[in-house]
Amino acid sequence: MENREPEYVHGYDERESQRLQAQAGSVLDLLHADAAYPRGSRVLEVGCGTGAQTLTLARNNPAVRIVAFDGAASSLALARARVRAAGLGNVEFLHADLFALPFSEQSFDHVFVCFVLEHLIKPHEALVLLQRLLKPGGTITVFEGDHGSTYFHPHSDAACKAISCQVELQRRAGGNALIGRQLFPLLSGAGFADVRVSPQIVYVDASRPALVEGFTKKTFTAMIEGVRERAVAAGIIDAASFDAGIRALYRTAENDGVFCYTFFKGVGVRTASTAVR
Amino acid sequence: MENREPEYVHGYDERESQRLQAQAGSVLDLLHADAAYPRGSRVLEVGCGTGAQTLTLARNNPAVRIVAFDGAASSLALARARVRAAGLGNVEFLHADLFALPFSEQSFDHVFVCFVLEHLIKPHEALVLLQRLLKPGGTITVFEGDHGSTYFHPHSDAACKAISCQVELQRRAGGNALIGRQLFPLLSGAGFADVRVSPQIVYVDASRPALVEGFTKKTFTAMIEGVRERAVAAGIIDAASFDAGIRALYRTAENDGVFCYTFFKGVGVRTASTAVR
Repeated sequence: MENREPEYVHGYDERESQRLQAQAGSVLDLLHADAAYPRGSRVLEVGCGTGAQTLTLARNNPAVRIVAFDGAASSLALARARVRAAGLGNVEFLHADLFALPFSEQSFDHVFVCFVLEHLIKPHEALVLLQRLLKPGGTITVFEGDHGSTYFHPHSDAACKAISCQVELQRRAGGNALIGRQLFPLLSGAGFADVRVSPQIVYVDASRPALVEGFTKKTFTAMIEGVRERAVAAGIIDAASFDAGIRALYRTAENDGVFCYTFFKGVGVRTASTAVR
Repeated sequence: MENREPEYVHGYDERESQRLQAQAGSVLDLLHADAAYPRGSRVLEVGCGTGAQTLTLARNNPAVRIVAFDGAASSLALARARVRAAGLGNVEFLHADLFALPFSEQSFDHVFVCFVLEHLIKPHEALVLLQRLLKPGGTITVFEGDHGSTYFHPHSDAACKAISCQVELQRRAGGNALIGRQLFPLLSGAGFADVRVSPQIVYVDASRPALVEGFTKKTFTAMIEGVRERAVAAGIIDAASFDAGIRALYRTAENDGVFCYTFFKGVGVRTASTAVR
C-alpha cells in the first residue's frame, strides 16, 4: 500500500515471502481460530500482501465474499496465483491504495487487518476510514506484533540492539514496530465500540521444537537479519555489533534457551450511532 | 526463608501484605486453576510467606495434607492465623529453612513454589533438593514473575528506569527478578522430566477496570514504589527520576493506557530413574 514507506521494511523477495508463510503457519492459527464469518458476509482484507492470510480466510470461510486489496502489484499477483492454485473462488483482488478505495460507506460486514497498521504513517486515520466502510454492527479484526514484547534467555544486550535496528528503521519509514500494545487506544480512539484486545504470547523453549525452528529462527531472527544491510548503511549500528546480536538471538534457540514474543488481536464494532467524521 | 536476602526486597509491612493479597486475588486464579491434587496427597508449599497461596491451596484441596514452611516467623504467624480464621484444618505450618528441612527423601507427592525462586541465591540447588523430596511420579509446580516482561503504553524510559531499580536491588541481594523466563532451563537442569512452562500474560487496558486497579496500580506500581527509599539510598537513582518513573507507571492506568506483565508457570515430574545427586 502506498501508505507504507516507499521501501517496505521487510522487503519483497522470495526469502521474505517464505518467512511470512512460516510465520503464518506456526502462529496465525490463533488469529483465524475465531475469524469465522457468517455465510453471505462481505469481508474486506486490508493490505493482503502475498496472500498468506487471504488463503486461510478464504478456506475457513467458503460462503463469504472476500475483497482483498494491496498497493503492491507484485505482491497482489502472488496472492492471486496462490488463491487460484488452491481452487478458491471466493476472493476478489483489487490493486488499490487504502486512502483511495472505490467503496461507498457501509459496503462491508467485516474488515480484517493483519500486519498492516505497523507500516502506516496514519493508523488512526486508516481506522476511521475503515470504520466508515463497515455496516453498523460490523466488526474489525486487527492483528499486530510488538517488537518491544521480545525477551529471551540468555538475555543479551547485543540482541536487543539488533532488534532495535528494525524498530528504528520502521520508525524512520513512518511505521511503528511497537504498535501491538496500542490496539486498544487506537481502536477506541477511532470510534469503535466494545473494543476487546487479546494478547497471544508465543513462548518458545526446547520442548516446542516446531516453534524453535518456525518462530525463533525462521520468523523472528530471520526478520531481524533481513535489515542488516539497511541498518548498517543507515549508520544505526556497525556490522560486527549487528552480527553479534544475531548470534545471540540464535543462541536463544539452543536447548536451554527461551524466546518470548507477543502478538495482539483487537476486535471492535461499528455502532449504529457512530457518526461519520 | 534464610536463603532470601537478609532484607527481603518486598519488605514485610502491612501495606506489602495487602499488595500480595490484591495480587493473589486478581491474577493467581490462573495458577490455582490446575493445582488440584488427588485426595490423600501430601503437598509441600515452599516459602509460604503470609499464606496468600496457602489459603487457596488448602481451600481447593480439602482432602490433601499440606505442609507449608517459611523461614520468616512473623510471616508464618500471619499465615497460620489466616488459615485458622478460614476454618481450614489441612495445613501444617513449619518454621524452617529450605536447605535444612526435616524431611527424608520421597516424603511428598507434590511440591508447590510461588514467588520464591526469584529470591534465592541458589535456585538450581533448591530445585535439586526439592526433587529429592518428591516421590517418583510426583510433580513440582513453580510460579514466578519476570520484570523484564513489563511493557506499557505510553512507553516511558523513566518508568523503565524505576523498574530497573527493583531488578537491581533484587540482584544485589542475590535474587533474580527476571527468573520467570528461565523456568524451563532451571527445571530441566535440575533433572525434572516432562517440563512444561506456560506463560500467563496479564494484559490491562481500560476495558478491564479491576485489573487497572488490582494489578497495574495496587500490585505492580505499588511494588516498584515500595523500593523508593532503598533505591535512592543505594545510589541507583535520584529521587526525582524515580518519582517521574512512578508517575509514568500510573499514567499507563489512564483510559488510553495499556500495561502488560507476564507470569510463568512451570511444571515438572520426578521420574523413577532420577538419581539423587
